[in-house]
Amino acid sequence: SEFKVAILTVSDTVASGAGPDRSGPRAVSVVNSSSEKLGGARVAATAVVPDEIPKIKEALERWSDVDKMDLILTLGGTGFTPRDVTPEATKEVIQKETPGLLYVMMQESLKVTPFAMLSRSAAGIRGSTLIINMPGNPNAVAECMEALLPALKHALKQIKGDKREKHPRHV
Amino acid sequence: SEFKVAILTVSDTVASGAGPDRSGPRAVSVVNSSSEKLGGARVAATAVVPDEIPKIKEALERWSDVDKMDLILTLGGTGFTPRDVTPEATKEVIQKETPGLLYVMMQESLKVTPFAMLSRSAAGIRGSTLIINMPGNPNAVAECMEALLPALKHALKQIKGDKREKHPRHV
Amino acid sequence: SEFKVAILTVSDTVASGAGPDRSGPRAVSVVNSSSEKLGGARVAATAVVPDEIPKIKEALERWSDVDKMDLILTLGGTGFTPRDVTPEATKEVIQKETPGLLYVMMQESLKVTPFAMLSRSAAGIRGSTLIINMPGNPNAVAECMEALLPALKHALKQIKGDKREKHPRHV
Ligand code: NA
Repeated sequence: SEFKVAILTVSDTVASGAGPDRSGPRAVSVVNSSSEKLGGARVAATAVVPDEIPKIKEALERWSDVDKMDLILTLGGTGFTPRDVTPEATKEVIQKETPGLLYVMMQESLKVTPFAMLSRSAAGIRGSTLIINMPGNPNAVAECMEALLPALKHALKQIKGDKREKHPRHV
Repeated sequence: SEFKVAILTVSDTVASGAGPDRSGPRAVSVVNSSSEKLGGARVAATAVVPDEIPKIKEALERWSDVDKMDLILTLGGTGFTPRDVTPEATKEVIQKETPGLLYVMMQESLKVTPFAMLSRSAAGIRGSTLIINMPGNPNAVAECMEALLPALKHALKQIKGDKREKHPRHV
Repeated sequence: SEFKVAILTVSDTVASGAGPDRSGPRAVSVVNSSSEKLGGARVAATAVVPDEIPKIKEALERWSDVDKMDLILTLGGTGFTPRDVTPEATKEVIQKETPGLLYVMMQESLKVTPFAMLSRSAAGIRGSTLIINMPGNPNAVAECMEALLPALKHALKQIKGDKREKHPRHV
């Protein structure tokens, strides 16, 4: 398959063993069921880290720089509580911001619930890896992926430097 | 009441005594009439500062760090004129950005007037205080508050670390 | 005419002579046909640079600081490929962000194509110059300008410090 996807569950509860990881397995299933629309994608790695900036950054950097993942989805840690720091960790590792992805995730999520406005998700590119923060809620992951799917394959091909993927209208 | 709100009018004209503060009193009235939906909120402080970054920052830092306000609304200084610097001052004091709040304020404001695109509002969290820039126009304050109300109580509870306020769909 | 506009085509292909500049001339024509709605605007300069941050910054700084342009439109270099760095160069030179302009360009562009989510455009103010990144596609330039036109004249007047342009609703 063409694209390697990594999924990072960010949760004190799951990392400490105090609760099950409901988001991670759901995200794996969402990626697998989106694989065809992505032109071939498989989940190549999953991990769980607590809500701590150094731990989150370490996973994102390793998966980008060493394991050359094409796409990293983080799950959780995007809210307003004091422990929610996933966007801050993400902004420290990305080299280019991708605000349009955040726009469409917000636009679509708000159609489901006004609480979507509490998402502080960040997204961007590090090297040739696209990193996208998603909410921890299992249903929200599916909604966000749905919002991105119409352009996600092109995004991943562009990041790899595929000039043919320069779309005729928006480059 | 549960939440303490502070309102900062940012205006050279008002600060110099050359004109009345129309936005401040209107914002007080908007907060008071929203108090029930916020689960209890009262305006605990108001102030007026000129359009100067150090003066704005000083008020935001004092109200966050010393007076432990739950919510600070700034009014004005978000436009394109050379003196408009409220977002720049705000970005220097917030520790976490809250882009979804800006999204819904922009979305709703654009339904009223295309001039809403000229708002450069910032918003974010400092310690356990939520800081939101609003336009100086009295009607716009009511419109922006209306846009935020469906999730604002949850936002303020989450910031205080209330885990029960982790919403089932978006955390 | 009141406003001086500069147009910067950012493209390795055009800069190297390997292909024609289709976006630049189209943008000139879009500005000219929008001139009346802008209260008078003329294209005072055009240039082509490769997708390199120092070259892009140099043009933006010269046109802002020396030539005192009112508006600079950049064309291209806003996508996800490794060479796309126009937003990064722009963010290094702007002093104030103008997120509402990005919001309306994204909102309108998404009505045309979901690939609009791949735009990473930045926009902001440097001195008394407004700088806006637009996609390289000639049709997208017209669409983005259309989205901005309802408030662009007010934006340019506010930047010049015209207090009368403080709009009654959003200041
Ligand atoms: Na929208």
